[in-house]
Amino acid sequence: MNEWTRRLMNRHADKIAVGVLGATGSVGQKFIQLLQNHPYFEVTEVAASPRSAGRPYGQVVQWTLPGNIPKEAARLKLKECQPDLQCAFLFSGLDASVAGTIETDFARAGYTVVSNAKNHRFDADVPLMIPEVNADHLQLMHQQSYGTGKIITNPNCSTIGMVLALKPLMDAFGLQQVNAVTMQAISGAGFSGLAAASITDNVIPYIKGEEEKLETEPLKILGQLNGGKIDEASINISARCNRVPVIDGHLESIQVALQNKPQKKDLIECWTTFAGEPQRLKLPSAPLQPLYYFAEPHYPQPRLHRDIEQGMAVAIGGLRTCNLFDFKFNVLSHNTVRGAAGGAILCAELMKAKGYLQ
Amino acid sequence: MNEWTRRLMNRHADKIAVGVLGATGSVGQKFIQLLQNHPYFEVTEVAASPRSAGRPYGQVVQWTLPGNIPKEAARLKLKECQPDLQCAFLFSGLDASVAGTIETDFARAGYTVVSNAKNHRFDADVPLMIPEVNADHLQLMHQQSYGTGKIITNPNCSTIGMVLALKPLMDAFGLQQVNAVTMQAISGAGFSGLAAASITDNVIPYIKGEEEKLETEPLKILGQLNGGKIDEASINISARCNRVPVIDGHLESIQVALQNKPQKKDLIECWTTFAGEPQRLKLPSAPLQPLYYFAEPHYPQPRLHRDIEQGMAVAIGGLRTCNLFDFKFNVLSHNTVRGAAGGAILCAELMKAKGYLQ
Amino acid sequence: MNEWTRRLMNRHADKIAVGVLGATGSVGQKFIQLLQNHPYFEVTEVAASPRSAGRPYGQVVQWTLPGNIPKEAARLKLKECQPDLQCAFLFSGLDASVAGTIETDFARAGYTVVSNAKNHRFDADVPLMIPEVNADHLQLMHQQSYGTGKIITNPNCSTIGMVLALKPLMDAFGLQQVNAVTMQAISGAGFSGLAAASITDNVIPYIKGEEEKLETEPLKILGQLNGGKIDEASINISARCNRVPVIDGHLESIQVALQNKPQKKDLIECWTTFAGEPQRLKLPSAPLQPLYYFAEPHYPQPRLHRDIEQGMAVAIGGLRTCNLFDFKFNVLSHNTVRGAAGGAILCAELMKAKGYLQ
Amino acid sequence: MNEWTRRLMNRHADKIAVGVLGATGSVGQKFIQLLQNHPYFEVTEVAASPRSAGRPYGQVVQWTLPGNIPKEAARLKLKECQPDLQCAFLFSGLDASVAGTIETDFARAGYTVVSNAKNHRFDADVPLMIPEVNADHLQLMHQQSYGTGKIITNPNCSTIGMVLALKPLMDAFGLQQVNAVTMQAISGAGFSGLAAASITDNVIPYIKGEEEKLETEPLKILGQLNGGKIDEASINISARCNRVPVIDGHLESIQVALQNKPQKKDLIECWTTFAGEPQRLKLPSAPLQPLYYFAEPHYPQPRLHRDIEQGMAVAIGGLRTCNLFDFKFNVLSHNTVRGAAGGAILCAELMKAKGYLQ
Repeated sequence: MNEWTRRLMNRHADKIAVGVLGATGSVGQKFIQLLQNHPYFEVTEVAASPRSAGRPYGQVVQWTLPGNIPKEAARLKLKECQPDLQCAFLFSGLDASVAGTIETDFARAGYTVVSNAKNHRFDADVPLMIPEVNADHLQLMHQQSYGTGKIITNPNCSTIGMVLALKPLMDAFGLQQVNAVTMQAISGAGFSGLAAASITDNVIPYIKGEEEKLETEPLKILGQLNGGKIDEASINISARCNRVPVIDGHLESIQVALQNKPQKKDLIECWTTFAGEPQRLKLPSAPLQPLYYFAEPHYPQPRLHRDIEQGMAVAIGGLRTCNLFDFKFNVLSHNTVRGAAGGAILCAELMKAKGYLQ
Repeated sequence: MNEWTRRLMNRHADKIAVGVLGATGSVGQKFIQLLQNHPYFEVTEVAASPRSAGRPYGQVVQWTLPGNIPKEAARLKLKECQPDLQCAFLFSGLDASVAGTIETDFARAGYTVVSNAKNHRFDADVPLMIPEVNADHLQLMHQQSYGTGKIITNPNCSTIGMVLALKPLMDAFGLQQVNAVTMQAISGAGFSGLAAASITDNVIPYIKGEEEKLETEPLKILGQLNGGKIDEASINISARCNRVPVIDGHLESIQVALQNKPQKKDLIECWTTFAGEPQRLKLPSAPLQPLYYFAEPHYPQPRLHRDIEQGMAVAIGGLRTCNLFDFKFNVLSHNTVRGAAGGAILCAELMKAKGYLQ
Repeated sequence: MNEWTRRLMNRHADKIAVGVLGATGSVGQKFIQLLQNHPYFEVTEVAASPRSAGRPYGQVVQWTLPGNIPKEAARLKLKECQPDLQCAFLFSGLDASVAGTIETDFARAGYTVVSNAKNHRFDADVPLMIPEVNADHLQLMHQQSYGTGKIITNPNCSTIGMVLALKPLMDAFGLQQVNAVTMQAISGAGFSGLAAASITDNVIPYIKGEEEKLETEPLKILGQLNGGKIDEASINISARCNRVPVIDGHLESIQVALQNKPQKKDLIECWTTFAGEPQRLKLPSAPLQPLYYFAEPHYPQPRLHRDIEQGMAVAIGGLRTCNLFDFKFNVLSHNTVRGAAGGAILCAELMKAKGYLQ
Repeated sequence: MNEWTRRLMNRHADKIAVGVLGATGSVGQKFIQLLQNHPYFEVTEVAASPRSAGRPYGQVVQWTLPGNIPKEAARLKLKECQPDLQCAFLFSGLDASVAGTIETDFARAGYTVVSNAKNHRFDADVPLMIPEVNADHLQLMHQQSYGTGKIITNPNCSTIGMVLALKPLMDAFGLQQVNAVTMQAISGAGFSGLAAASITDNVIPYIKGEEEKLETEPLKILGQLNGGKIDEASINISARCNRVPVIDGHLESIQVALQNKPQKKDLIECWTTFAGEPQRLKLPSAPLQPLYYFAEPHYPQPRLHRDIEQGMAVAIGGLRTCNLFDFKFNVLSHNTVRGAAGGAILCAELMKAKGYLQ
């Protein structure tokens, strides 16, 4: 059975109704785009701030993605983010300024929410998920006291690509130190988060709160599940974050110190053979191969490689031994697909496959 | 006596005749622009490859800098790079593919050449100069066996800004480790060195040979002059170099491990009070203050700060303690001014002030 | 029978062997990319300049398109552009500096060549094709004296989008005057045709020879076939061409004077109902709808709409009455797909459907 | 007496106190920058919206221009835009959403306001000024009924460059038709007026209200003063406006139909010899030569030529005869200098020289 047949067979009529919170925003639009014709999920509810509510989604949203607004979504009436939506499962693209409370309210009302916001990422009972890396962390949900409702979170966009590249190294060689300098795309700032006059012919060497996220989130994601809680990984991480004039795709210069002393070819083999639960379960959004290694020294590049496997795979290159650490290499991932909406959808697919939905 | 009066008094009629090798290239054009109305030097000769020679400079050069070609230079007849030019002093903006031999030929014929090319940088008897940092290294010239001719070199554009920021830290606190990730401007690749189709909406995480330069040149520049040769500094440096879609201005994310354990305010004071020979000698191209520190976390930025002190000063910001090293900070310098033509002119001014030019 | 089934049925095992001349260049690479898995054609030969010949295509080409080099093409041995290739049909992405002679040589040797170069566009017996516009012009080939060999040409990239938008207006209302100001993408200059340092933060208000092409090619394309030759259309055209910092997609500000005096809604209906031979013949590369009209005043935009129907459709918007002409509107088309390789492939599909290939 | 001496002699101690309304915005910042060390004017008041008022300007403003905030301005306390400021003369960089009422209030209270906003541009008694073009229109002020207060307006940024290029043609050859297609810079949209995600790798073929301004403002500016009112010029203008990813500098593709039928050289002579009242009066901000003509077909370009004469001159190039009009050419002007703050300051200098300021 080939890839195409497999995916086709996954499609069935009885789809799970889902809603999108913050549907008019940058991440919300990406959810709407990626969930179009999804084999498991069907968007039946779209919600945003009260001032947008009441009219059809297609008339309210300032659609900023290439291509047209999916027709089915355009017809949906935009509602407020109140826990009376007609679906049990929600994707949240809400801004951190409001996400915390709204997501809690929905969880308390019995909804399951997969969130892109930072607010609940470090709640002890909330999984911070990268499906290929820590599928077992979903069990944390059992600790939650929201009743039937649940909150699951997606890491920060710059964390996801890096951790996917680090996970096989940690498993094979022991990971002690990570140094990261990021060059992050404009779309990571939300559609109107960045003025054109500020980033054209420029680099902004600062993204508020970003370095802290990159220095802490990997510790939880790479941590061990231990009796209903996470023992954080013992890795020393330093991060510096820059915004560059690129539309999509976060590029990261990474350096690592490893416990064992492998050779370059060992790392490359580790990466190219890496697979996780999404690949074993053949989840519909899973990349066939999560990590791609490029031998060309000038690869990967954001514009050329951000769309590998529809933006769900991570590209690695530029591997060199390092004068200060063991190795340096570059990591590229699509920040609004793998790093946001696509990652959250993959997580929801994992939850369905594992029986967490119904 | 104010700054203006001082500079005005430096102007005098009997200027030193100078030539520019590789005058039609990117660095060559910058030399022509910056030497216009220079108080010490007057461009009387322009030379380039044989196929360009024979016609007036203004008719041959594809002028790519804002503003017009200086009128005096436009009228000069473009000559071949043969050691029969009518001036004793030369600035070389030649490409490394030809610079080595041509510069040697000129030195042997009695010319003094200040070069931007990499070819002679590591010759044991050739100074690799940043005037504020290692003015005393000019004495290396006495070891040269070219007769009256001499070769002096300018470091790589990405080296200069970094070393200027490191020098006061080394002197005050001892410098042990340096980690650098650069985001370098388009103009560093020469005018046609980079295709528009390759860098628009993109980052290229590789510049051939650049990481090696950044890992080795500082060791010579920061080394000690010891009995006619340089003892290289004992610093461990790792560099990663990226090209970003910015016209001018190299931004560098730097991390340092220091011997003494200073506080943030100590570093800032070190930087803002730093001055070198060019400041003491009040050289015409010297910035009044070589290093500027910005407290705003999102500063410095290439487009906003590359032109500080006409592009001759270096901007520093984003100082934070680091989980892996002692500190991290960002350094910005104008790659074609301080990092190339401007730096070479400052070096020539230093040589004049020190009596090396007649 | 739905669209998918129709296209699937078009696929068959006995494909026509084709070659690509100038396969390593910008247009050549696009041919290789678009011909991958083509239902009619299979690339069996790749040819380029002598200095590239002899090695596998994948080792020689500097692949600059997103995604990887198609595996089958990568394995092909790159040959010289000599008329001894093992295929009867050729797509030419050769540069105009060499295309004229080489294409003539191939035609004389019995090959059929669909060319993107300008050299033969105005040969009286050579069709200048936009399949939706002048399918009947293919008959011009019968006038050629190359024996079994033939030359067919694709118009200039900026001509194609404009003429597709003008054709239905001409048919319905009579077309008297056309004024065009273009804003053309970087990729139109070939991969290394434009230095990054020249176009970043800039517009270049000149493209050599482009205004002349835009002022003359439409007259032939929109002309009438009359007894084995073309009577050129009687339209007065003025064009001004600019290069802008956009990767792909030529945007054109068009003004027209029409014989009849229609209303805005009449133009819109004309455009949205337009179809040509490729649509009637359901050719594999034909857009289902060649022209899209956008009512939003700020549409179409290069980054948002260049990929409509895989880059084969043309987007129109901004229709307003004009103080000097009758109407003004904007036209956007993907310059390397519809405007080059994709357009040439559609032309070849038309030739096959019409029985011109065996 | 040379240019330098002349300008120096203009400097004197008793400067006129001026204020800037909307001082924190994009145009307001440019006023602050350009008025630093101005020979006639000294900024003593800065005003903005109530929520910004009360703190020092330097602490409130998000300074976005290269270089630092002028020290004197940084210390000024930011006030509300209420007519109790301690200066009789005001520059307004207010947004059109509030400028109308505020400027009227100030005029009624006896202040003289030079405004960049569109609100009062078409008031019959308000001059719409380009000092080189219609210095005599200042007399319109006498019709105003504000008492001692007055309102004078600056045209739209895209109007100014075009009209400066058209004025000498109108005077010499009679101007009948003008067709304009603009490619306007990001900075014209105000600092945060345009999202980075919307314009990177893109062109937006629409600027709200801009085409109407360009089609109407020139008629008033080029009109004749006739008994206390303006007889508008009889010119037919059509405009199409685009936003391009350029930081500063509006480039315009212009076509003209002229009454007399001059030759190319006649137009060029007209332009290069053009001068107006500011040049005759040797006003401090006046360009020595208002119009520069470039013979190179690919000039002028925004990045290379926007700063000619500190951004106060207009660059023209690409002159060609036209198939539909008489001539086509390109016009470039710096939109925030000549097209906004610089133009308004030149107007104020004219007013002072003409005795309108005490």
